Amino acid sequence: MTSLFKDKNKVILVKPRVYIGDTISIGPGKIEILRQVGNLHSISSAARALGMPYKRAWLLIDTLNQGFGKPVIETTTGGKKGGGAVITRLGQDLINCYDALEKSLNQKTKDELNALRALAEFS
Amino acid sequence: MTSLFKDKNKVILVKPRVYIGDTISIGPGKIEILRQVGNLHSISSAARALGMPYKRAWLLIDTLNQGFGKPVIETTTGGKKGGGAVITRLGQDLINCYDALEKSLNQKTKDELNALRALAEFS
Repeated sequence: MTSLFKDKNKVILVKPRVYIGDTISIGPGKIEILRQVGNLHSISSAARALGMPYKRAWLLIDTLNQGFGKPVIETTTGGKKGGGAVITRLGQDLINCYDALEKSLNQKTKDELNALRALAEFS
Repeated sequence: MTSLFKDKNKVILVKPRVYIGDTISIGPGKIEILRQVGNLHSISSAARALGMPYKRAWLLIDTLNQGFGKPVIETTTGGKKGGGAVITRLGQDLINCYDALEKSLNQKTKDELNALRALAEFS
């Protein structure tokens, strides 16, 4: 393993994990699975695209559904292709709000991020 | 399980996970173990205080040591009390910088956080 000690200008970025009330937590994992289901219209395809077990993907989605008391993904069964999944309006709003937060905090905490980066570059 | 649907004024907060270069990631778990080692001067006591297996605590610390190419915790062996652990200057700087980032981003992204909270309160 190469030490990072001598690296210059390391990329630094921050991803948020948001806690709302007692039962909702939203981090990059849940947002990515939502985004992939929105693109691929299938939980199993989304899980595969992220290299995540289907069971875990389903659990992440169900945890959101339960926490919000309203679905972020709706599944359809049967039909020629054996059913699929669609993202709801709430699910899409969640992605949009999370992305806006991520963008904003990376812009607005540059000083604090630079202080952290300096620890890695000059320590 | 109680649905959150009717809750009002839910507390919302965000915790950062910071990525520096290719090999450093710092989130609340690593910061808490560092903080507890700083307080308790022992990795096993810190792990116990956080309800975390010793092995996992040690691994989180070692990952930081390797990523920075310099220790965040130093261990001493032997002696009457069977050795202990102390946090280094780098380790303490890391806690301070992370805390400053967390405080700053909770203050500076209130609009985006309120938009997320509204999804949980009115969806």
